[in-house]
Amino acid sequence: MSREADILSVPQNPKGSLVIIGGRENKDGHRPILEQVASRITDGKLVVATLASEDPDEQWQTYRRVFTELGVGRVEHLRAETREELVDSPPLELLEGAEVLFFAGGDQMKITSKFGGTVLCERMRELYRQGATIAGTSSGASAMSETMMVSGEGTGNVSETLRMAPGLALVPGLIIDQHFAERGRMGRLLAAVGQNPRLIGVGIDENTAIVMNEHSGFSVLGSGAVYVVDGRAMTFSNAAEELPAAPSLFGLTVHVLSSGDCFYLEDRKPVKCGRAE
Amino acid sequence: MSREADILSVPQNPKGSLVIIGGRENKDGHRPILEQVASRITDGKLVVATLASEDPDEQWQTYRRVFTELGVGRVEHLRAETREELVDSPPLELLEGAEVLFFAGGDQMKITSKFGGTVLCERMRELYRQGATIAGTSSGASAMSETMMVSGEGTGNVSETLRMAPGLALVPGLIIDQHFAERGRMGRLLAAVGQNPRLIGVGIDENTAIVMNEHSGFSVLGSGAVYVVDGRAMTFSNAAEELPAAPSLFGLTVHVLSSGDCFYLEDRKPVKCGRAE
Repeated sequence: MSREADILSVPQNPKGSLVIIGGRENKDGHRPILEQVASRITDGKLVVATLASEDPDEQWQTYRRVFTELGVGRVEHLRAETREELVDSPPLELLEGAEVLFFAGGDQMKITSKFGGTVLCERMRELYRQGATIAGTSSGASAMSETMMVSGEGTGNVSETLRMAPGLALVPGLIIDQHFAERGRMGRLLAAVGQNPRLIGVGIDENTAIVMNEHSGFSVLGSGAVYVVDGRAMTFSNAAEELPAAPSLFGLTVHVLSSGDCFYLEDRKPVKCGRAE
Repeated sequence: MSREADILSVPQNPKGSLVIIGGRENKDGHRPILEQVASRITDGKLVVATLASEDPDEQWQTYRRVFTELGVGRVEHLRAETREELVDSPPLELLEGAEVLFFAGGDQMKITSKFGGTVLCERMRELYRQGATIAGTSSGASAMSETMMVSGEGTGNVSETLRMAPGLALVPGLIIDQHFAERGRMGRLLAAVGQNPRLIGVGIDENTAIVMNEHSGFSVLGSGAVYVVDGRAMTFSNAAEELPAAPSLFGLTVHVLSSGDCFYLEDRKPVKCGRAE
């Protein structure tokens, strides 16, 4: 594949992993998700990106503390108020030797509008292809999709709550939603899948994550559930019409997964694969 | 069927109808759901039951006004603070000539604990078999199930939010949930179906209703969606274990229905059946 194509689409056969977190993962006590992220470090760096946040300093202090407590020796901070900063003087040295890049939460559109298409973003994709782990929580999780869900709340009128924008395209074929049960987002995820069942909808609860070691599938980690919406067998959708307040979508398949469950993308099947924590 | 059996289980081949409303139906302006309820009156009474409510007087004033505005000549009030009232001096005359009995919202357990198994309840079932409409909104909707969902909120731990109790058993084979998208209740409805896929889960949004003219199926009315959860094809459920925070349920079928859609119980299939309003 040409380099250009590789920048523009989901990386093929990456050696790296993705850890995609539904937000509000435990930061003290039993914290299997952040342990999983920290365990990806051998002797390299863990870089915390606070691009999405309104309060990057506080976020950085929190994650620096937690990852340091979890034994990570080198924790560094990728921050930027504006895209201009990242374009004018991209801190490429930050990513040198990075084994994990962790996207903290906030607003996913801030991640893509500041970082998408920069040389730094390109470098991240290269690291991922070579074996690095890309992790993201809350909006950092949504941003991993090719086409990502943005803003809007899950309750009420679907035409108000379903908004999409181009994401970082790290994860193949999934459309990710987070804070899922907590914010009642099933309606918008079903509608998103109804618009194009090529994609599989994945709604991740708080303090819950999916781990994708290769692009063949994922396993579930944490205390909540992961809802998988498969529209392949859908027999009717009015999503092509101007999206009404309440769509009609017939025959979707839903799986509810919890810690120890796995999902394979090729046959779109969940299986018990052993307790992950 | 013996009379006793008929009291204890869902009525067979009733001539009546059910109008089951997800709560917060419009009471002014465009109000197709309450119009639907009012339209069931020819020359009989519409009885508003406020058994579930903390504030029966206010509720009664509201519904009396609305149904009167909608042209119903005789609107009467079934209220009771305690079961004792209904047992000691059952107001059977209230139900004489009733064409509609409308259960307003509140706490469904108050409906069943005050009214369930009383002679009044038996009389209601008789009226329903003979052709009356039984309508219910919010907790009045939940109460229609054989086994009903009670209290608990839809977000967070399913083992905390999924509580059941015996309902009035007017509707066959459905487990009803209400305020559905608004309170993010998909998780608990999926889990309820996971416990016994004999039942079909039906989650009704606010200002949305299902109308069941005979027990073969229902049509959808109002501005929101109706979520149907069918677990017949489910391949795995851990609901028989002590219910964990996040259950594993594989292979459920979900349909999203809106106004003008119908659902048939026998083959568990949704169809477009024309705009109902």
